[in-house]
Parts: sequence; structure tokens; C-alpha cells
Amino acid sequence: MVKMNENFSKLQGSYLFAEIARRTAEYTTANPEKKLIKLGIGDVTKPLSNVVISAMHRAVDDMADKSTFMGYGPYEGYEFLREAIVRHDYAPFGAPIRADEIFVSDGAKSDCGNIGDIFAEDNVVAVCDPVYPVYVDANAMSGRAGDWDGKRWTNIVYLPCNEQNGFIPELPVRTPDIIYLCFPNNPTGAVATKEQLRIWVDYARRNDAVIMYDAAYREYISDSGLPRSIYEIGGAEECAIEFNSFSKTAGFTGTRCGYTVIPKALKRGGESLNDVWMRRQSTKFNGTSYIVQRGAEAVFSEQGEKEYREIIAYYMNNARVIKKGLEDAGLAVHGGVNSPYIWARTPDGMPSWDFFDKLLREANVVTTPGAGFGPEGEGFIRLTGFGDAEATKQAVERVVGVL
Amino acid sequence: MVKMNENFSKLQGSYLFAEIARRTAEYTTANPEKKLIKLGIGDVTKPLSNVVISAMHRAVDDMADKSTFMGYGPYEGYEFLREAIVRHDYAPFGAPIRADEIFVSDGAKSDCGNIGDIFAEDNVVAVCDPVYPVYVDANAMSGRAGDWDGKRWTNIVYLPCNEQNGFIPELPVRTPDIIYLCFPNNPTGAVATKEQLRIWVDYARRNDAVIMYDAAYREYISDSGLPRSIYEIGGAEECAIEFNSFSKTAGFTGTRCGYTVIPKALKRGGESLNDVWMRRQSTKFNGTSYIVQRGAEAVFSEQGEKEYREIIAYYMNNARVIKKGLEDAGLAVHGGVNSPYIWARTPDGMPSWDFFDKLLREANVVTTPGAGFGPEGEGFIRLTGFGDAEATKQAVERVVGVL
Repeated sequence: MVKMNENFSKLQGSYLFAEIARRTAEYTTANPEKKLIKLGIGDVTKPLSNVVISAMHRAVDDMADKSTFMGYGPYEGYEFLREAIVRHDYAPFGAPIRADEIFVSDGAKSDCGNIGDIFAEDNVVAVCDPVYPVYVDANAMSGRAGDWDGKRWTNIVYLPCNEQNGFIPELPVRTPDIIYLCFPNNPTGAVATKEQLRIWVDYARRNDAVIMYDAAYREYISDSGLPRSIYEIGGAEECAIEFNSFSKTAGFTGTRCGYTVIPKALKRGGESLNDVWMRRQSTKFNGTSYIVQRGAEAVFSEQGEKEYREIIAYYMNNARVIKKGLEDAGLAVHGGVNSPYIWARTPDGMPSWDFFDKLLREANVVTTPGAGFGPEGEGFIRLTGFGDAEATKQAVERVVGVL
Repeated sequence: MVKMNENFSKLQGSYLFAEIARRTAEYTTANPEKKLIKLGIGDVTKPLSNVVISAMHRAVDDMADKSTFMGYGPYEGYEFLREAIVRHDYAPFGAPIRADEIFVSDGAKSDCGNIGDIFAEDNVVAVCDPVYPVYVDANAMSGRAGDWDGKRWTNIVYLPCNEQNGFIPELPVRTPDIIYLCFPNNPTGAVATKEQLRIWVDYARRNDAVIMYDAAYREYISDSGLPRSIYEIGGAEECAIEFNSFSKTAGFTGTRCGYTVIPKALKRGGESLNDVWMRRQSTKFNGTSYIVQRGAEAVFSEQGEKEYREIIAYYMNNARVIKKGLEDAGLAVHGGVNSPYIWARTPDGMPSWDFFDKLLREANVVTTPGAGFGPEGEGFIRLTGFGDAEATKQAVERVVGVL
């Protein structure tokens, strides 16, 4: 008789964004005349830029001709894209990252979830609290989270991020083996300085831990003094894996392309994590669509960068509008600078799902309740700058109107 | 200190096709003037068909316009594609499969590998021998294979497929919990009848086991009496998951799209496997590229089917050429009918890697050594009909010339 993975039954309800979608759909069905504005899930709204569209049209045409047709590609992605990534993301600040340390995938979420395959079940995992739910849920599925005690997982080391510490986690009492960090942070919008990351890199090296660094929002950093990659910190190549994505840089949420960096210098128990991940990918993955990889390559061309920077500026203007509107209405607001996320305290200590429901029903604005990101997220909501500029202005007015 | 997944270190060398690529590259580097013909890895060579190309151009244009731009899609794939799959693959023979039982992905290999996430570690897995290496390696990574004893994994139930049983596995002595079946078979080219599948469906239901049915080559079946899906067998919806792919049907090896069917009637330990897989996918996957899904939808249009049937006929003609050539030269040859794969016995009992090397060096033809698919594959090589027609003819002449 087949036995199911019992860890799944410990998971709390559905995945956060699935639950938001469910409540939203329920409201829409009951109130079909209401026009909702969605500032909840971090999905982009601007179309792909011209140079990306042209590159994908050319790639589709490549697939139509026998002489240029592309079958199975390299598991780790085409060299043209991996080289473009090195030139764009790492070479400019002299990071010791080469093309054979980059793995292209169908998205950072897949890699963040699947990376657990290469580690033993009995590692201790640390996450920021609040945190992007994928890190915790994926580890819970693999049996690394322990049990759910009603508020927290018994075997996860939570790193509280709150107003007291400026949403930058402090070193924990219990030493973890795997440490998830994400800056600019989802959901709080916090950004770490080099000095703050240095503390974590030194800590991980001292304890033979591995940092999982999620840099999906790196292109939203405009302050040149802030690090866009963990590899701007010397020694990180010996202790950190970095996850990146074209989703928020270039609007690829529906086009699907991400990339993960595993430096060759990163070894544990005598094994190269780069080799082990390659073994995992060559067995359980068959590469990313050629058409999509050509589009991603174009993102990092000179014209591609010019075009995506305009789009990011547009979203960051939305973030400023949200931040200012809520601040003027008296809410405590964080993020929204060097980050597309705004993290706002609910009024009068209202529970975050209650505030979510209130904004959905009274303001017809979809947000993300902070509690969905972890216990420390209670009392906050997350808003994003990824909407349409006019709709964002209107949403802020509606929200302010019901406060 | 982080601990690695020790199961990876038990894996034998690199993934089969990576090893073939390595040996081939080594030979090519040493003999750059030699022109190799590849009949080894099952990669297609014909370009995508017209209707698919047009659909993907339109989808790229959708991404260029704010009003038609697509962000995050449903984790399980767009309804337009899932409905097209039901109409094309299941409705024609009255199988009880609906669109909400279909999960679209970036490829059948990902799903075949990742499906293990939803099962406990201590299930007993049965595979055909020889077999597509992904089933075994993915389970070995999860700790389900036991130890490698030099020839076999100690905890895998091997189902020998050989000339004696016509390459159709018989029921095993030890009862497995998870049973991988693949028809038309990769690598032997064997095809199962309804009566033969009925035995396995009844067996799985009797033992509360789950069948993993890989139907990636279903469109190569021209004999209308043979089942293209496990769901042509009544009761399979209570005991089988089916994996499908656009790779071999429509040349999507580099475009990337597959789909997995998990019927709602399939329950174990009180849990719906459909629900559990949805939880897995919503946590560790973010959907398949919209552009690719539009291309896949076009495959199943009336014109799309006409176009892919012409391509399949072309490949099947290659298969006939290979089969006839090798048979005429005195080799024992299997497959090649209702299947793009030819499974040929090596001459004089030569070990299959030796024969692989001989054909590589003397005939400059790349094949796949049978031993790479399991102990029972020793003494065979696999050839595929996916090449260019002229090159295939030439390859057969070269092979015959060195026998």
C-alpha cells in the first residue's frame, strides 16, 4: 500500500496566495459589479519591453527552420544567457562568479523549492519572520520544519524582523545549517547594507552553514552603496547560493525564467554543491525553453537594460505614491525605497486578515495580510508598486477613505 | 554544519545521457574532421510546425500589449490548454478525465522526477528493467532505492523485460507500492495491449499501489486496437497517474511543455493525490510559460494534429529504415513499430558500452548503450527514428558496414 508524505498533512491550509485568490474570487462572485484593484500578489502589469519581444519573435522563427531549430538544451541553460548574466550581474562589481556557476531555470520559485533536494532532512533551517512562504513550506514538505504548534514550526529557527531591529534579522541563539535571506526583502521591503550582510557571511562560514540568498528584487535598488548580490561580500562564494529572477526585473512572471548561482568554491562534506545540483537538475529537469532564454538574454542587452529601468522607475513611482498616501493618512509605513514592497502597520492593531477583508470589501482593494508571512507579520499588510499608475492612485484613495 | 543528502553520493556516475555527451564530445575533440550522426538521445530534429509557430508569435505579441499581457498564470496551467488536452487525449475514447485533473508543466521529466515529493520515503518502487533512468535516479535521490550493490539498487523491485516475455513485465514476487510503466516503451519500443495493462491496473487496485504511467510516446501508436492512455482501462482512474509530453508529439524538446493527469478518484490514506500535488506545485512551481502553452494548444487544433502526424510519419519511416537495415544485417531487432525506438541486440554478445564505443569510433554513429538503462539492457543498444531521413539511411549503412 502506497504511503503518502505525511509532512504535507502538517501544512497549514493552502498556500498564502492561493488563499488570497480564493477569498478574492468569492467576493467577486458575490459582487460581480465591483471593480477590484489588486495590490496584493507581486505580479507585474506592464508588458514585456520591445527588445525582449523582438528577441522572442526571432527565437520562435529559429524554431520554424530545420537549420536553426533547437531541441534539448543544456540542463544548466544556454551559454549565451549564462555569459550575459555574468556580464550584467557579477562582472561589474568584480564578483568571482563565472558562467559555469550559473543554472538557468523556469523560475526562482522552482529553484528555491527544489534546492532542498540536495540537503539532508535533518538540517536546521532559519528564516526571517515575516518571510516569503515558499522557503518554509518547501522545507516543511521535506520534513525539516518539525511540527506546527499552532503558531510556528517547532524545528524552524525564526529570525524576527520588526520595527525594533529595522527589519534586519539578528544572529540567532540556536545555530542553523541553512539560512534564507532575501534583500530587498519580500515582504517588508527592507534592504541590507554590506556591513549587515558581512555579519551573516562571517557567521555562515564560521558554522559551515549555507546561506540561500534571494536577490529577486535586486534591480529595484537605486542606492549605489547597497549590495545587489551576496557575492559583493568577500567570502560569500564559499557559503552562499543566490537565487535570481527575470520576473520582477523584466516582467517575466508569465514568461518564466530564473537563475541560481552556486559557486564552485562552495563545498560541504567534501562535496561541490555545484556538482550535486547539476546532478539533481540533469535528472529532474530538462532545461528552460529556448524562446524564453533568448528573451532573457535580450533583457541584459544595453537596450534591454534601458527599457527595464524605465519600467522599474514606473513601479517605484507607484511605491512612492502608496507610501506617501498611507503615511499621510497616519499609518506606520516601511519599505517602498529600493524595493517595490510597502509594509504598512494595520490601524489600531487590527489583525491583518481582518484588515485584508476590510480593504477587500470596503475599498475593493486586494492586499496581502502580513500574518500570511509568519507570526511577526501579524499587524501588517503588504502592498506592491506593480500596478497601473492610475489604478494605484485610486486604490490609495480608496484605502485612505475607509481608514 | 550543513549536511548533504547522502543519497546523491550513492548514484552511479553521471546521468546516462550526460555520459554519452561526454564520450561523444571527447571523440569529436580528438577527431574534429569526423562527421557524427546521432541516433542516440531521443531528441527530435524537425522544426516546429506552422500552426504552432503562428500561435507562439501571437502569444509573444500578447505579451507586448498591456491589455493582453499575461503575468503569473494558474499553477496547473491555463484552462484553454487543459480543455484542449481533454478534448484531444481523453474525450475521444470516453476516459473519465476532466480539465481539473490535468497539470501542465515545463516537461514530463520534471513531473516524473518531482512526483516523488508527495510520497513517503519508505515506499517500495518497481521499475521495468531496462528503464528510462529518471525513474530510478529520482527515487534514489529521495532514499527509496536502498543501496547500490554494484549491479542493482537493493530496494528497487526490477521487472525484467526481455526477449522471453516480449519486453512486457510480469507481476513481481515482492509487492511494490509505486509502479512505473511506460508504453510505447523507452527504451525497448515495446507496446502493451489493453489486456496486458488490465493485469497491472487490477494488481495496483488490489494492493493500493499507484501506477506512474509514462505515455510520452502515445502518438506513435498507429494500431487503433492498442491503448494510448492507461485510462482506456476502466478503474485506472483509481490507481494511476499519467505523464504526457509535447516533446515527441510535436517537437517540443527545446520548447518545453508536458502535462500530468491525476484523477480526483485517486485517493490513498484518505488523501486526494490531486489535492496534494496541487499543494506541491503551488509551493514549488509557478506555472509554464504562457507563450509555450499557446503553442501547445495549437498542437491539438485540427491543423496542428494534421501537421504533427506528418512529422511522426517521417520519424516512423526512419524507424522502419533502421529496423530493416539492422535485421537484414543479421541483428535481432525489437521495437520500431508503434514506437520511434529500435532496440537491437549487440553482435556476438558484445557488451553494450563496447558496441557504443565501436559504433562511435568506427561508424561515427552515436547510439545509446542498453546497459545504461539497467542490467537487462546489457547486450542491447537503442536507436531512434528522430534523425534526418538522409542521415538515418547513411547511419544505417555505416553501422552495417562495421558489423
